[in-house]
Amino acid sequence: MNAEVIAVGTELLLGFVVNTDTAYLGRVLAEAGIACTHQVTVGDNPGRLAEAARTALARADLVITCGGLGPTVDDITLETLARVAGRRLVLNRPILRRIENRFRRLGVRMPGSNRRQALLPEGAFPFLNTIGTAPGWILTLRHAEGERRLVALPGPPAELMPMVERHLIPRLRKLSGGMILRSRTLKLTGITESEVDAKVRDLLSLSGPATVGIYAHPGQVDLRITARGKTEAEVRRKIAAVERQIRSRLGRLLLGADEETLEGEVGRLLKQKRKSVAVAESCTGGLVQHRITEVAGSSEYFRGGVIAYSNALKESLLSVPRETLRREGAVSSSTARAMAEGVRELTGSDFGLGITGIAGPTGGSKKKPVGLVYIALAGPGRVKVERRLFSGDRRTVKLKASQAALNLLRLRLLK
Amino acid sequence: MNAEVIAVGTELLLGFVVNTDTAYLGRVLAEAGIACTHQVTVGDNPGRLAEAARTALARADLVITCGGLGPTVDDITLETLARVAGRRLVLNRPILRRIENRFRRLGVRMPGSNRRQALLPEGAFPFLNTIGTAPGWILTLRHAEGERRLVALPGPPAELMPMVERHLIPRLRKLSGGMILRSRTLKLTGITESEVDAKVRDLLSLSGPATVGIYAHPGQVDLRITARGKTEAEVRRKIAAVERQIRSRLGRLLLGADEETLEGEVGRLLKQKRKSVAVAESCTGGLVQHRITEVAGSSEYFRGGVIAYSNALKESLLSVPRETLRREGAVSSSTARAMAEGVRELTGSDFGLGITGIAGPTGGSKKKPVGLVYIALAGPGRVKVERRLFSGDRRTVKLKASQAALNLLRLRLLK
Repeated sequence: MNAEVIAVGTELLLGFVVNTDTAYLGRVLAEAGIACTHQVTVGDNPGRLAEAARTALARADLVITCGGLGPTVDDITLETLARVAGRRLVLNRPILRRIENRFRRLGVRMPGSNRRQALLPEGAFPFLNTIGTAPGWILTLRHAEGERRLVALPGPPAELMPMVERHLIPRLRKLSGGMILRSRTLKLTGITESEVDAKVRDLLSLSGPATVGIYAHPGQVDLRITARGKTEAEVRRKIAAVERQIRSRLGRLLLGADEETLEGEVGRLLKQKRKSVAVAESCTGGLVQHRITEVAGSSEYFRGGVIAYSNALKESLLSVPRETLRREGAVSSSTARAMAEGVRELTGSDFGLGITGIAGPTGGSKKKPVGLVYIALAGPGRVKVERRLFSGDRRTVKLKASQAALNLLRLRLLK
Repeated sequence: MNAEVIAVGTELLLGFVVNTDTAYLGRVLAEAGIACTHQVTVGDNPGRLAEAARTALARADLVITCGGLGPTVDDITLETLARVAGRRLVLNRPILRRIENRFRRLGVRMPGSNRRQALLPEGAFPFLNTIGTAPGWILTLRHAEGERRLVALPGPPAELMPMVERHLIPRLRKLSGGMILRSRTLKLTGITESEVDAKVRDLLSLSGPATVGIYAHPGQVDLRITARGKTEAEVRRKIAAVERQIRSRLGRLLLGADEETLEGEVGRLLKQKRKSVAVAESCTGGLVQHRITEVAGSSEYFRGGVIAYSNALKESLLSVPRETLRREGAVSSSTARAMAEGVRELTGSDFGLGITGIAGPTGGSKKKPVGLVYIALAGPGRVKVERRLFSGDRRTVKLKASQAALNLLRLRLLK
């Protein structure tokens, strides 16, 4: 069983959009044990898409396209694939009703062009779109080279990914039979890529049944363990053996695995211990609380907080003493501490986080450079304050500071 | 003149690495006025790379490969392309000396495998690598279909990009015969993709010297105008003509162009009018303020605000009347209004934004479904409240609500 992925979109050829769908589908296919031999991108051009689809169907058992299923005139995938497959387009009434209902629910009149999105090649099985309007589909074809599956998926990752999880992956499992490949990503924070590299260099050069790759992000280093085998149990055993070694060396730096996030892990620990947190942000400007509230159900442990960008608000809302601001400045250990205590008091939460710093690009000085951030955690007992110096642009400094603040709370909750 | 890009690397097919080289080369080619018709990815497999290179040379004047030039056994690009081009490999002594010097400088013995990196197909012109060891190269070929250029570049973006800037771009300018291509993206908000489509369908089907593409994001629709021509002035004139038509039809929905963002535009208007804003967020959980503070210099017009996730904080910090919360609920027009007025008062800002809604996935009811959001803007004069119903998951609802809130302020500032 081998596969080929065709991405459709002039914006991909022009480099306006980085193609993440193809990488995602690559992982999905690999995990199902299906070899993907080619990834091809063509523009919104029926002739070139038809040629690419014919070439792919001649050499791959499974051909997956992504993109070009929208309602506009430059969305050409549906008509082109139907022509290549030699199938006419038929109206799917349940899908039409779904699209009509969607517009009705949103209180918007459905434009005529959206009706086209209820058309499918004859014989295709639809994949419902839970986020947008365009359905995906799978079609089984007889081909001179053997039986073929042709799959069409929408381009936006938010629409494509749930559709793949729900409809495509279960079918891939059946199609592939044999070998499987699984990956597990361990996420570390509070350590640099070179420090991780030094601690696990022997594992990074593993080859054979299990391999380890290293990937750096702002404020986070990922280690990806990949293993192949005949059964889930065999593959899981191989991964677990490597994971044990990594855990024994890097222990508490590990914030989670795979889909787990730092904000999710903090939420899990707060729920488990029935504690709540509030946040007072200056330089991160709301990012820490935005991340906390990305977790569904966060209202159980998060009541709210304050963005105190100006000194006046630090004083009036968080009771930071004017004297502290005057003598030590808004970016100081004492201000961070007073902010953390202030927001804890103000909201009646168990923990209070205070973050103040210089995100840049301006506002730095020799003594207090851009990237300097103080992070304080107030709770029952002593207030802990960290002084950090982050590199990077404004966005990166905000991101790294939010990561360090959430990690400070995570480590405290683990105690 | 048209081009094709071939990326080489099994890690790309497996989705462990997102291919950013291809998007970068797409932009480089587009800016040089060279149409890129296909992007193809193959693994570290000599047979498939040879086939892809032959196909590309049959249909493109310029074929660029990236990846597979390293010193290890799975780096197969050099030998494969030399075979396809019918050229033998010859040792380039200046490159060998550079590689040897590099290792000497680092105080490391050169592994024998690195000697291979000083080999080039006969007749190829080398591109020096200022970061790593593998040189790139360009080779001119006679082909049954006409003269061809074959280019090999290393895979790591840090090595590829300086090489492209220094060696490839000057050659592309000569090859393209002076034609250039430029794009301008107009960003719209407060309108759906289908509504935009209905208003500019004639422009979307333009072909020839200027084209228009449509791209949807949560809470935003982009129209990208692309034009070709001989001079910057000519191309700019063509783009401006289409832009005038779009502006005349979609006017105030336009939030900015190219690198401009909604939060940047709001900041620009606030500075221009010397006004300040504060924000009280419930369902968006800090995202609106995070976006406002992504703009460098935002402290000039943003003092801070409140995240009031719990009813208690809505009451105590924002003075939302307990009676309002009891009778109409936290997600209501009156609560949004009281939040906007409350935060304006609390911070002494000119404007106050209040956002309350149900981001989901739980917490919805028949009367107040997931995605229902009230957005209020308080300022001098009357308070304006919008009731919106957004589709999508938690993250998308938050994003769309933040977009609508910032746009409400933008429109008010434009008055």
